[in-house]
Amino acid sequence: MPDTKPRSVEIIEVAPRDGLQNEKAMVSTADKISLVERSFAAGFRHVEAVSFAHPKHVPQMADAEAVMAGLAGRYADRNLIGLALNARGADRAVAAKCTQINYVVSASEGFARRNQNASTADLIAGAKDVAAIARAAGIPMSISVTTCFGCPFDGEVPVERVMEVVEALLPYDPFDIGFADTIGCGVPSQVTDMLARAKKLSSTVKWRCHFHDTRNTGIANAIAAVEAGVDFLDASTGGVGGCPFAPAATGNVAAEDLVYAFNRMGIETGLDIDTIIDTARWLAGVLGKPVPSALLRAGVFPARAA
Amino acid sequence: MPDTKPRSVEIIEVAPRDGLQNEKAMVSTADKISLVERSFAAGFRHVEAVSFAHPKHVPQMADAEAVMAGLAGRYADRNLIGLALNARGADRAVAAKCTQINYVVSASEGFARRNQNASTADLIAGAKDVAAIARAAGIPMSISVTTCFGCPFDGEVPVERVMEVVEALLPYDPFDIGFADTIGCGVPSQVTDMLARAKKLSSTVKWRCHFHDTRNTGIANAIAAVEAGVDFLDASTGGVGGCPFAPAATGNVAAEDLVYAFNRMGIETGLDIDTIIDTARWLAGVLGKPVPSALLRAGVFPARAA
Repeated sequence: MPDTKPRSVEIIEVAPRDGLQNEKAMVSTADKISLVERSFAAGFRHVEAVSFAHPKHVPQMADAEAVMAGLAGRYADRNLIGLALNARGADRAVAAKCTQINYVVSASEGFARRNQNASTADLIAGAKDVAAIARAAGIPMSISVTTCFGCPFDGEVPVERVMEVVEALLPYDPFDIGFADTIGCGVPSQVTDMLARAKKLSSTVKWRCHFHDTRNTGIANAIAAVEAGVDFLDASTGGVGGCPFAPAATGNVAAEDLVYAFNRMGIETGLDIDTIIDTARWLAGVLGKPVPSALLRAGVFPARAA
Repeated sequence: MPDTKPRSVEIIEVAPRDGLQNEKAMVSTADKISLVERSFAAGFRHVEAVSFAHPKHVPQMADAEAVMAGLAGRYADRNLIGLALNARGADRAVAAKCTQINYVVSASEGFARRNQNASTADLIAGAKDVAAIARAAGIPMSISVTTCFGCPFDGEVPVERVMEVVEALLPYDPFDIGFADTIGCGVPSQVTDMLARAKKLSSTVKWRCHFHDTRNTGIANAIAAVEAGVDFLDASTGGVGGCPFAPAATGNVAAEDLVYAFNRMGIETGLDIDTIIDTARWLAGVLGKPVPSALLRAGVFPARAA
């Protein structure tokens, strides 16, 4: 492999939010706090900890303020990201002392309607208020663009459409923009193309990718993203997650599966795979069911000395 | 993606042999024949149909002659590959009218001893007799080199060791040499490196890779192999398989998962994914249990019109 390829990537732990939000089990506030603590112990510097969606729509996240009360202010150099779908959510995120707000825009109209009951244009416009709230609070705003690789309702989503959404969002000065493969249908050639186009639109915004392993392409996509110079990758310990509004979506890419591949490829993450695997095992116990993680099942290679 | 990248790859169906050999269920001869027929119907031109291992060691393959009796001579332009671990097996493969013999050499001593009760040097020497039998029968010999990416007993297997084995095998004039990730521990950078080194050793031998999805790197490895110009990829419909002598090994890369990614990336395989998925569904019924295939679970994208 040529030395010119990037040799590190920052993985954002999304298990506490995107992971647990999509599990049937209602996880206690204490266990949610413990999950974030364990993630920090594994070396994650960025954790999407909570969502400030309406509790009627996402009951699993109804205790977002309580989770943040157990975490805020305890970690000087760690980022506690809160998901906010609108200004109301952004206000809650600031009040709860989140250190970053993640806003969501759907690239496809069908998913925008089903997931957020709005048009893509509405959602782009909504970034203005969230950006203002984040700016006033002195914290960064990231934006996740969903269904970038395909929509469960509209089918194909042209990359030109995704880039139009990105261009429309740039004036709101996001810290990063993330390309989400919401239903896990993407392939590496799409990733390579999307990131190359994005980098031409801005050299200051950070780029993030968010993959699901639904069709077994998650790890390949993540590797392609690193090779294309992505700044951040979302992943969830244990591979937990999915999407309640995306039929047949399975979990996020498992953080430990990514770290295994990256470790063996010499791509630095700063993460401790054994701690992540321990957390995945604990999380399976909390959820009362197996988690998708391949590394939890197979173990690292070479095997650890007994 | 640059136009210089290869845009096609030939996938070898290994479900009837590597797949079924490692399943607990004893599949009937009729169902084995049906599996090969279904694989041919899906467009596979090469199928590893049987193994001529000793029935005491691999009882699942005891009916190899009966399976071949139901298939041989019926398909003019399709390749029925038989696995042979020694001259006795190669004689049986020729008598059963296999159109190719696949011989096996372990790159690591630990696996050579446990899997074939021999040293790597013994196995390399054994290629001479098998090659002579194949040549006399006028059929090609391929060689699978196991544990190229890591050994469950010896741990790391240096790529230099793998290349030494390849060099020692070249005088026997194999049609192809396959690099097998027997325990599914390999990563794409290894694949890229191994194939680049191999191509320097011979420009006439065809190169093949055989991946297991144990640690979720199978699809990424397969894509890396195609990008490095591999000639053949082994895969199994449904992702069935594993290895009785390799602890924690899970199935082969699922053919339909590969074809999904390749179709979306514009890499031609000549295979019909819907037929493969139908076969995977049928095979799960035959085995009486779910198969690992992601595409069988998630469906293709975009979804087919109802």
